[in-house]
This record gives sequence, structure tokens and C-alpha cells, in this order.
Amino acid sequence: MRINVKTGMGEYPVFIERGGLSRLGELFSLDRKCMIVTDENIPQSLVEAAEGACGEAHRFVITPGEHSKTLASFEACLEKMLAASFTRGDCVIALGGGVVGDLAGFIASAYLRGVDFYNIPTTVLSQVDSSVGGKVAVNFRGLKNMVGAFYPPRGVLVDLDTLATLPPRHVAAGLAEAVKMGLSLDESLFRLFEEGDPHAKLETVIEKSLLAKAAVVEADEREGGIRKVLNFGHTLAHAVESESHKGDSPLYHGECVALGMIPMCTQEVRARLIPVLEKLGLPTACPFDYGTLISAMGHDKKMKGDSISVIRVEKVGEYRIDTLPFTQFAEEVKGLKL
Amino acid sequence: MRINVKTGMGEYPVFIERGGLSRLGELFSLDRKCMIVTDENIPQSLVEAAEGACGEAHRFVITPGEHSKTLASFEACLEKMLAASFTRGDCVIALGGGVVGDLAGFIASAYLRGVDFYNIPTTVLSQVDSSVGGKVAVNFRGLKNMVGAFYPPRGVLVDLDTLATLPPRHVAAGLAEAVKMGLSLDESLFRLFEEGDPHAKLETVIEKSLLAKAAVVEADEREGGIRKVLNFGHTLAHAVESESHKGDSPLYHGECVALGMIPMCTQEVRARLIPVLEKLGLPTACPFDYGTLISAMGHDKKMKGDSISVIRVEKVGEYRIDTLPFTQFAEEVKGLKL
Repeated sequence: MRINVKTGMGEYPVFIERGGLSRLGELFSLDRKCMIVTDENIPQSLVEAAEGACGEAHRFVITPGEHSKTLASFEACLEKMLAASFTRGDCVIALGGGVVGDLAGFIASAYLRGVDFYNIPTTVLSQVDSSVGGKVAVNFRGLKNMVGAFYPPRGVLVDLDTLATLPPRHVAAGLAEAVKMGLSLDESLFRLFEEGDPHAKLETVIEKSLLAKAAVVEADEREGGIRKVLNFGHTLAHAVESESHKGDSPLYHGECVALGMIPMCTQEVRARLIPVLEKLGLPTACPFDYGTLISAMGHDKKMKGDSISVIRVEKVGEYRIDTLPFTQFAEEVKGLKL
Repeated sequence: MRINVKTGMGEYPVFIERGGLSRLGELFSLDRKCMIVTDENIPQSLVEAAEGACGEAHRFVITPGEHSKTLASFEACLEKMLAASFTRGDCVIALGGGVVGDLAGFIASAYLRGVDFYNIPTTVLSQVDSSVGGKVAVNFRGLKNMVGAFYPPRGVLVDLDTLATLPPRHVAAGLAEAVKMGLSLDESLFRLFEEGDPHAKLETVIEKSLLAKAAVVEADEREGGIRKVLNFGHTLAHAVESESHKGDSPLYHGECVALGMIPMCTQEVRARLIPVLEKLGLPTACPFDYGTLISAMGHDKKMKGDSISVIRVEKVGEYRIDTLPFTQFAEEVKGLKL
């Protein structure tokens, strides 16, 4: 399947294709210098398959995890590209999950003010969500995605075969974003989780998620309006995630999104959401005190002055953007009994 | 005068107005947190005038010069904005020359993936050229503008009164970019330099330069094609500049542009250009060996693979983009007798 995503800088294709990595050189123009940004967990066979499609392949390998998504990594990769005399006609390829995609995309956006960027997501999370939409960034002073850009890729390849070695907990966490998309935008997608085994329908889940996401980002590339719906569950999720990373066994992003969505639904919607989260093995009870979370939220990007915009789901497949004083939201969150 | 510049992200106004700084708050929406990026040479009275228009003014002051246009400055300013809890609804204002504008624009482009950016250029160079067009960047490992973005401002204010304290050598260097624009794009602009005293016609010079520039960047925002004309003289200029900065009394950017244009003109055009440069007090004889310069050019952004695109002027007001093998261009430059 091929989805075309329109942006202010033109259109780009998203190929959803099992085994697509072996056809990488046919899908994209890579007969040039390519900086492949990847992490140590990505199987060598995948990296070598990608390299085989490149005119002149270079590698920038990070240690896996958010802690690598820094300005220091950004700078180190730019330095490597400079040393290899990358020009504006060369490109950057992300081969990995959301961390790799965010970092690689920001590097591509900034080197010589922008070179071509291709994204080959290898996790469920990045395949259903983060690889499409053009948001790229690094973390800064412990805060997620503080420094970055809106920089659409030149092309995305979603190859489901690259998920083969992904641990089940990773898969479940990734599916949380697809649940988010279904819950807020597409009831037929949400039903794929309610009925039978979602893992057996993964290709359809990914397609429906990306179609929903593409429609939203096309309507609002730079997150001025309705793109906010993609943040459904994320205001609290980011707070849970920040808190969780202070401990020894941090929750995954998707697990935090699961926990972040629950309070933003009505009781009725929640009654459909909880069984889905349980079926996927995602958490449904937050291990942190909401009072602590709320105090960590001063830097949330969705805050504007003293008010905050949150997404509420009152009916599966539909959403409402609710802007309210931050203090009022804080009271609501502190008083939550789930 | 007001010029509207169209971009992929919308349109922005450029106000050319003597004394406009005193009306800053009427021209732009600044009733919010504003980070004013400026340098130590900018008169306090100007900084205070700008601050007076801001809802909540913050200052980031750099030491003047290219050496401040670094990722370290970028990071320090982001840190300051984070500490002051800047949100997406806040903004960054550049008050200074090209260095300040390039740095401030890149900061604005990256903080939370982009906040509003206003540019108040206070040098001739930035007023006639760099404040319009959306190219922002920092230097990296000694190479100019290696890391940056295309990020249009939300508005530009060109207030000629801010030039009052600018040393004559600065003024002349700035006018070199206007000469460039006239020579390659608009003969009527070039004539302003040939006839009488250009300094007496500064407002017209700035207007004509910005109109010429706006037309080019509207046609080619991301420098894929004809925007290359704005690099007329710059391939050699950047090489002259890099070399010059190794010594004790570096040439100004505009002086390097003057030297960079000369070899790219025909004899006939050169015969009109040299008297103009002399009238402005700009250099006409290059202090460096062209062989040394050419070896510094491996990283030039206008190189693509083994060929190079250069701009040639064979008739005043018109240009030609010439793409030739780098080795051939190197031979031409090495053999130059001016």
C-alpha cells in the first residue's frame, strides 16, 4: 500500500510493504552519500540491507533510548557528515524507532539548512505514528522534544518484517498509539482492537492509523489547530513519562499514553478502553500521584499562557478540544478517582 | 513602505520606515514574552526602545562577530528561554546585524519546534539583504552557516535611523550586497551607485534591494533553483572570508563579496563594477592567493558532487547560472589575472 502525504514543502510517499527493505533502492533515490542513523538494537541484517541500497553508506549508531536524543548526538552526527563532505544533494536515513527518527530528522533538517530525509521505522510505535507528520526533535535539559523542527521526510518505508525481533512489550506499547488514533478519530480502527486478536491484523491496524494521521497532519502541518488531537492522552502521558524516568524501571512511551488517555475519556468510553488496554497487556492503573504529575507540567508545550488545551473523547471515534484554565485542569486531575 | 513576502508558511511584512522602532508595538504583536537577541555594540537606547514594545522582555546579548554564531550560543539562549518558561505562543526578536539575525532565527525555528520570529536589522548588510529570505543558521567547526534552517520571520522592520552610529566601513560593506543585487538583477539599482552619492539615496537603495530579493526568494524559497543568484560573488567570497579570518584584521563579509564578484563578471561589466566599488571604498584587489582559496572550497554548499554552480554576470542587471566541473572552475580561478 502507498499513502501520499501532502505538506507545505510538497508530497511524500509512505510505503507499507512487507519485505520492502529489500527493495529500498527502487523505492527511494539513494545513489548518493547516505548517513544511516540507527541504534545498537537494530539487527545487523537490517542495517546491511539498508546500506546495500545506498551509493555511499555511512553509519551513525546511538545507544538505544531517549537519553541519546540530545543536542550532543545531533552535533556528533553533523560532525561526521561534515568530515565525510556531505553536500546538500546527499541524505539522511533513519533506521529504528521514534528516538532514531526524531534525532535523524532534526539532523537532516539542519545540516546545510536541510538535506533529504528518509524514514524506515522499525518499531510498532514509529510505524503507526511518529514516522509520519514531520515532527522532529531532540530532548533538552530533561524535557522531551524541546528543540526541533517541522521537517517532512522525503519518503517513509514501513516494512512489517522489521518488527520480527521486537519484544512483545514494545509491540504493545506501540499499539497504544494506534488505540489512541482509533479512540479519537476512527471507530473502525478501535474495533480492530475490541474484536479478536489485534496482532493478527497488524497490517490493517498500521494502514488505518497512518491514514488517520495523514489526514490530520495534512489539515494542520504545524500543529496550529486540529493536529492537537494527536496529543490525545499525551498531556498526562508526558508527565507520567517524566516522572517514570526518575525511577529504575521506566514505563514505555506507549504505556504512558495508555495511562494518559484513561482520565480524558468519559466513563462510557473508558468502559470500552480498559478491556482493550488489558487485552494488549498495557497498564491501566497509574503508579504516580496526580498532584506530583501536575506540578511537572509547567513546561508542557500545549500550555499557552495560563490556559491549557486538552483532548477529550466522549464518544469512540470522535474528539473535542477543551481549552480551560490550567488551575482548573490541575484541580480536575488531582481529584481523579479512576 | 511595506513589502509583503510570500512563503510556504504564509506571508510576512517588511516595513521600511525611518523611526519605525518607536512604533514597534503597533507593527507587531509583542504583548507576550519576547526574547530579544542582540549584541554588545547595539546602542542601549535601541534595545530599550524594543523592550518598551514587549509584554515581557528578556535579553540575550552576544559579543559581536561571527565567532558568536555557534551552537553554544544557540543552546545558551534556548536554556534561557526554557528557564523563563517561554511557550509556543511567545517569540524571539533579533535586534542587530546578520550574525544576530541568523542566530536568533535559528533559535526561534528550533525552540519547541518553532516560535514567532521578528527581525529588526540594524546594519546596512542585514537591511538590504539578510533580514529577508528566511535563511537562518550558525557556524560549525569554522564553516559558515553549516547548521540551520529555512525559517521565515513573522515580520521585519527596517528602521534607517538605527544605522546612525554605524561606522563608514560597515556601511560600505553592507552596500556591497546591494551592488550585488543591482549587478545581477536590477540595472536601475546598480545605476544608483554609478550616479552621484549612493549614501544620499540609501532608502531607495534598500527598497530596491529588498524588492529584488523578495521576488527571488518568493520564486524559490528553499534555494533549489534561481535563488542561487543571490550567491553571486559568494562562492569566492566565502573562501576569501575563511582565509581572511585566519589573520589579525579580517575583511568584512561585504568586502569579501566585492572581491568575490569581480572574477565572475566579464571585462565589460568589471569596467563598470570597479569604479563603483572604489567609490564605496570597497577593496578591488584580493590579498590572497587563489590557489589557497580554491583548496578551502571542498565544503562549499553550492558544490554538488563533483560539479559546482557559479553565477556569472555578462550584462549588468542579468545573470547566468553556470554549472561546471569543480576542477575546471579551480583551473579558471587559479589562472585569474585581474
